[in-house]
Amino acid sequence: MAYKRTAIIGIGLIGGSFALAAKRAGSIETVVGVARSDETLQAALEIGAADEVTTDPAEAVRGADLIYIAVPVGATRGVFEQIRDSLESGALVTDAGSTKREVMQAAAELLPDHVSFIGGHPMAGSEQSGVRAARADLFEGAAYYITPSETTTQDQLDHMLALVRALGARPDVKVAEYHDRLMAATSHLPHLVAAALAGTIHRLASGHKELGNFLGAGFTDTTRLAEGSPEVWRDILLSNPDNVAAALDEMIQQLQQFAAAFQETDRQTFDRLLEGARQARRELLEQQRRELLDNQRWDVQNQ
Amino acid sequence: MAYKRTAIIGIGLIGGSFALAAKRAGSIETVVGVARSDETLQAALEIGAADEVTTDPAEAVRGADLIYIAVPVGATRGVFEQIRDSLESGALVTDAGSTKREVMQAAAELLPDHVSFIGGHPMAGSEQSGVRAARADLFEGAAYYITPSETTTQDQLDHMLALVRALGARPDVKVAEYHDRLMAATSHLPHLVAAALAGTIHRLASGHKELGNFLGAGFTDTTRLAEGSPEVWRDILLSNPDNVAAALDEMIQQLQQFAAAFQETDRQTFDRLLEGARQARRELLEQQRRELLDNQRWDVQNQ
Repeated sequence: MAYKRTAIIGIGLIGGSFALAAKRAGSIETVVGVARSDETLQAALEIGAADEVTTDPAEAVRGADLIYIAVPVGATRGVFEQIRDSLESGALVTDAGSTKREVMQAAAELLPDHVSFIGGHPMAGSEQSGVRAARADLFEGAAYYITPSETTTQDQLDHMLALVRALGARPDVKVAEYHDRLMAATSHLPHLVAAALAGTIHRLASGHKELGNFLGAGFTDTTRLAEGSPEVWRDILLSNPDNVAAALDEMIQQLQQFAAAFQETDRQTFDRLLEGARQARRELLEQQRRELLDNQRWDVQNQ
Repeated sequence: MAYKRTAIIGIGLIGGSFALAAKRAGSIETVVGVARSDETLQAALEIGAADEVTTDPAEAVRGADLIYIAVPVGATRGVFEQIRDSLESGALVTDAGSTKREVMQAAAELLPDHVSFIGGHPMAGSEQSGVRAARADLFEGAAYYITPSETTTQDQLDHMLALVRALGARPDVKVAEYHDRLMAATSHLPHLVAAALAGTIHRLASGHKELGNFLGAGFTDTTRLAEGSPEVWRDILLSNPDNVAAALDEMIQQLQQFAAAFQETDRQTFDRLLEGARQARRELLEQQRRELLDNQRWDVQNQ
């Protein structure tokens, strides 16, 4: 049972890849692509991600039974305001934002009761961006978080799960609050830290002409995340402020423990912190490995 | 003009690779390998890194015209104490430690005037360790810092430069104080930050069973350095405490700026910090690229 008419609002890398993957799986039929630039819309038509295009979200959602919103998380509320009066009764509305509480709350406030909103967060991406980088296999094997609301029925959730599985992704249902708390630790804090580290090294190095030779793979790896789009990340961080601020506090405290150990030239504290850090990393990676294997076993049993 | 008898104190990955590379280049003849374990010494003989072996540093340096010390930086002073009374007049003594001030000072205090000590820091390594991982090409193309003392003559420095070039490395002469200051920014701070981040995430995540799915490539990259040997890194950090503590202070201040921006939900500060961080990283990588090209041009002109 395919969705007859799908509006994709923000048809870039993620929105375009969703279109290609869901079409290939036979889960959706006609796609109306929405973007602000004509160039993007033209590209979406050319690569077959969209069958029709418009710059007007309200126009796009008229007659649509599925609405997929893939805009920066800070722009989602604005989209809700634009489309709320044009939504068809019974439509499924979902998004692809990196944080979920703010979006869930905006949906509860703004969207009419005759549609169902279920949040989504695909853990997929690419070094590239834009609809021309869209790929039907972008979601394959990726975790795809799904955040139902208090009013989501089992039937609605099952439809969402089926759609995500059709993309080749691994759906994982999480309460929005839980999702955002864990994301603060595993993704948002590392991003902030990488950015702060790049800025700090630059400041410490200013005026040193021969610094380049000193920069090794450690620098490159540790600061890689600082390459992320500042606009996208500002939105992500500001839509998860309490959790990220708490994680940041913990990080500052850890660094202050190291700073205190320098004050006291305290070998044992260094040993404890460095050994503890290595152990911590290994435990986390081991947990990741075990869960991946569990998921695969589950997949095999349920195929 | 080759060194007739070379004592390598700490014949592991670095010491063993030095032996293989310098032998291949014809820069050294007989090698006496020193290590604490018989297993290591046996392996050094087997792979051809050493011609003779002993567990006694004093014995090894008797009759040697070159002494290469490749032990953890915190153990170097102890080695100086062991060998000082057995060193031959005119011998060149060098080391491979990751920080240089402490070693230079210990050499000035402890080594006799009839030898010359020049510090060294090869920017080479491997995921593996131990003499069995030694390779004649380990130093090829790597930066190799050389830190002369106030009493080093041009003639002594030229000998050291020739030796490092024979390994295929790029010698770079730096004052020890300058070396340690820049290393604090580009290497020691990233290490501390990676360790603190791994510890922080582990603490934030404790009790969350399904965390593994949330850990992406960002986590893996940003915390990779935390895998380094705690003992080796404790020595490095504690032999560069003022510089690393100052760098750490800067880092904590950067993070506190982010924390303050959360307090005030200050979009502009986020934009400035994140955009600044991306720009900072790009400038640093560009500087690295330019210096690499300059080095290559210099090599071509001087071949």
